[in-house]
Amino acid sequence: MLMDFTGKDILNGFQFSNKELNAIMETASYYEMRVKRGEIIRDLEGLVVASLFFEPSTRTRLSFEAAINRLGARLVSMAEVANSSVAKGESLEDTIRTVDGYCDCIVMRHPVSGSAIRAAEVAEHPVINGGDGSSQHPTQALLDVYTIRKEKGHIGGQTITFLGDLKYGRTVHSLGYLMQQLRNKMIFASPNSLKMPDEITKELKSRGAEIEETDDIKYALSQSDIVYVTRVQRERFPSIEEYEKCKGSYILNHELLRYAKPSITIMHPLPRVDEIATEIDTYEGSAYFRQASNGMYLRMALLGLVTGRTR
Amino acid sequence: MLMDFTGKDILNGFQFSNKELNAIMETASYYEMRVKRGEIIRDLEGLVVASLFFEPSTRTRLSFEAAINRLGARLVSMAEVANSSVAKGESLEDTIRTVDGYCDCIVMRHPVSGSAIRAAEVAEHPVINGGDGSSQHPTQALLDVYTIRKEKGHIGGQTITFLGDLKYGRTVHSLGYLMQQLRNKMIFASPNSLKMPDEITKELKSRGAEIEETDDIKYALSQSDIVYVTRVQRERFPSIEEYEKCKGSYILNHELLRYAKPSITIMHPLPRVDEIATEIDTYEGSAYFRQASNGMYLRMALLGLVTGRTR
Amino acid sequence: MLMDFTGKDILNGFQFSNKELNAIMETASYYEMRVKRGEIIRDLEGLVVASLFFEPSTRTRLSFEAAINRLGARLVSMAEVANSSVAKGESLEDTIRTVDGYCDCIVMRHPVSGSAIRAAEVAEHPVINGGDGSSQHPTQALLDVYTIRKEKGHIGGQTITFLGDLKYGRTVHSLGYLMQQLRNKMIFASPNSLKMPDEITKELKSRGAEIEETDDIKYALSQSDIVYVTRVQRERFPSIEEYEKCKGSYILNHELLRYAKPSITIMHPLPRVDEIATEIDTYEGSAYFRQASNGMYLRMALLGLVTGRTR
Repeated sequence: MLMDFTGKDILNGFQFSNKELNAIMETASYYEMRVKRGEIIRDLEGLVVASLFFEPSTRTRLSFEAAINRLGARLVSMAEVANSSVAKGESLEDTIRTVDGYCDCIVMRHPVSGSAIRAAEVAEHPVINGGDGSSQHPTQALLDVYTIRKEKGHIGGQTITFLGDLKYGRTVHSLGYLMQQLRNKMIFASPNSLKMPDEITKELKSRGAEIEETDDIKYALSQSDIVYVTRVQRERFPSIEEYEKCKGSYILNHELLRYAKPSITIMHPLPRVDEIATEIDTYEGSAYFRQASNGMYLRMALLGLVTGRTR
Repeated sequence: MLMDFTGKDILNGFQFSNKELNAIMETASYYEMRVKRGEIIRDLEGLVVASLFFEPSTRTRLSFEAAINRLGARLVSMAEVANSSVAKGESLEDTIRTVDGYCDCIVMRHPVSGSAIRAAEVAEHPVINGGDGSSQHPTQALLDVYTIRKEKGHIGGQTITFLGDLKYGRTVHSLGYLMQQLRNKMIFASPNSLKMPDEITKELKSRGAEIEETDDIKYALSQSDIVYVTRVQRERFPSIEEYEKCKGSYILNHELLRYAKPSITIMHPLPRVDEIATEIDTYEGSAYFRQASNGMYLRMALLGLVTGRTR
Repeated sequence: MLMDFTGKDILNGFQFSNKELNAIMETASYYEMRVKRGEIIRDLEGLVVASLFFEPSTRTRLSFEAAINRLGARLVSMAEVANSSVAKGESLEDTIRTVDGYCDCIVMRHPVSGSAIRAAEVAEHPVINGGDGSSQHPTQALLDVYTIRKEKGHIGGQTITFLGDLKYGRTVHSLGYLMQQLRNKMIFASPNSLKMPDEITKELKSRGAEIEETDDIKYALSQSDIVYVTRVQRERFPSIEEYEKCKGSYILNHELLRYAKPSITIMHPLPRVDEIATEIDTYEGSAYFRQASNGMYLRMALLGLVTGRTR
């Protein structure tokens, strides 16, 4: 019934058909149910998964490592690249070949775009990309879709606003493609200097995406079923003046939420700094902490599928 | 029969009634027996415990992590805060909420006083304080009580000398309250500049503690069933001269032990530098390495109790 | 049938009789077979192994930690010594005594020669030396022997060339003694400034080793069943000029391999930088990545033997 993902690498957010996306979501849902009812899961017992973080990312690492443990697999972990073989001048390929000999699956995060593909080319075991440079972060995009599915009941035919820094936000780039594939309308709401890159907008439109661009946040909120907020980082702005001018208007708070549909779902990849006021954390549409938890279930699904162990 | 600790946070050393203290000691003893007879313990199988060290402490971390593993639980670990989400400006509350979504219990150590309480307020799962700033280190105080119980057979009605730096020693502050609660007499023996803070001495006396203060170590030893030694750190002294003057007299060695009761028990929270001469490591009353081992059993007890898994 | 290694420390490469070496190799082979057929191994279930890396070495650490996990044991890990108790001035002996109270076996790597012996003297549980300074790295030497056994079918009576930096290469020193013990002929091929230290060569000869020294790599290759390549590090040379002069001739590539026996086996402890051209990675005699994998099986064998759990 499920598609066979055994031995597949998870490298980017575009690699899945809608049917495959659905199978992944079903599997995540299945694991969420099993974890929540307190089942002792041994699906991956006897397997060793390597978690290689060539770039620190505590949040993503802990999410993957909790997933690995919850599946009954064993974990070997590299959280820190300083002073490692890598630092001794070893090529990524050699490191991966070595670790591939110890384990049954490799999760990796790397600061350089394209690293996950290079790793997958030399590894005999499946590689799951936990983010490589500005390129791809497929498990984030998939957990976002899983969150939409849970919060809304379906994953297509809705309007989603991407709010904040759309120029540098890797997350919104990956998710944009998936939203197009799933036939959602997108509104890009950002300060002018942090607009979605033209080549991405063009590419999305050429694939048939319905896109609106605006700097009117109130309007965007009024039209949206979902708002996906990203961090607006000071260092991305051309000047402090421009940052100070913008930042106030990109803080989602009670005041601004008055313009939104009552049923709006608020998402954020976290960590947030101050772009979402804590006063709306208790709002029932605030899904960002649930979204973080969903990451673990989604990663359990991917690990189970690529190792061929999910029954 | 046991008290129900399910879902409780372990935040400070004062939170327990004598009855609760006794239940914790019994549970630690039970786990010690099971580990020592080589039993494969699966009490926490299927649970994931997060070990979050926002401040490095290898000794405490390894003790907790061994306890987690010995109970059959799985571990996700953050030993290093540099470059983590925390470093990206995320609030402690957001970090805890996220990790709380991955795991069933949180062990944390943090450099800022009050952090454990803040974490416990937002986490749905139990939080165990592994030390927060100068505030509390309840598992250390509890393992000290457990050690006294094992070494002496009972935990009240004895005389304990606190020796060394009583001004900055977080350990002796926490333990002081427990010793008062358990009706032990205390002798505070320290250089004048490193005396127990007045507010603590007053507070202990107002609770009914019998306390003597002295800088005569020989006298203190002659009166004591237990001596609890702490590190005397050079940087705590107003001048090097004063340090040089003091340090010699605060080194526990064969010579000084001649003044002690033959049955005296010597404790130290470790790491020691030179305040206990290695020549007395083999003395049968030297309990400090046993004390360290006791920490693992005590932590197993707390983990088992707060997760509701201890049978 | 197997020798009894229960409780033994693994401290150096010379401590084993040929009979013991054989038992270790048989055990490694047994674990390799069980892992490869996908067996869920629980031989060390209920045991906790501490992995203490007082000096970073990602490759060796991950190999040991995968071995620990594959045996069903649990792991507590210290990958980073900065800011630990050690950094607070604690003696190695005190650290080991403490950790010894938490676990059933200690794996350690340390930058100072002789550390493993010091640790073994105070620990009640077995200590496995994962490399201590320039002194010993016995698990590397043993996995090299295991690799020769697998690649060649036997471990004695062959000719092995050690190529590259023989002056500073700890690996070739340890392996040299084992090769002598197993009655292999050795050729030392190195730039003149990086020759095998005289005292080692003399010692090996006094034990009856057949040794040839040369700087003619082509000749050495033509005589050898095995070539063991080591890194030639720039900083080891007296001057950059001498480095530049040498390095070209110590890169193993297709061109140079033409002078070798067709059946030659190429080994390298990794990480390599450029002393083996990637063009020969696909050559069937290139055993270095298999050699890395063998490390895990060999370490499983040692862990199983010293804990007395290998059936």
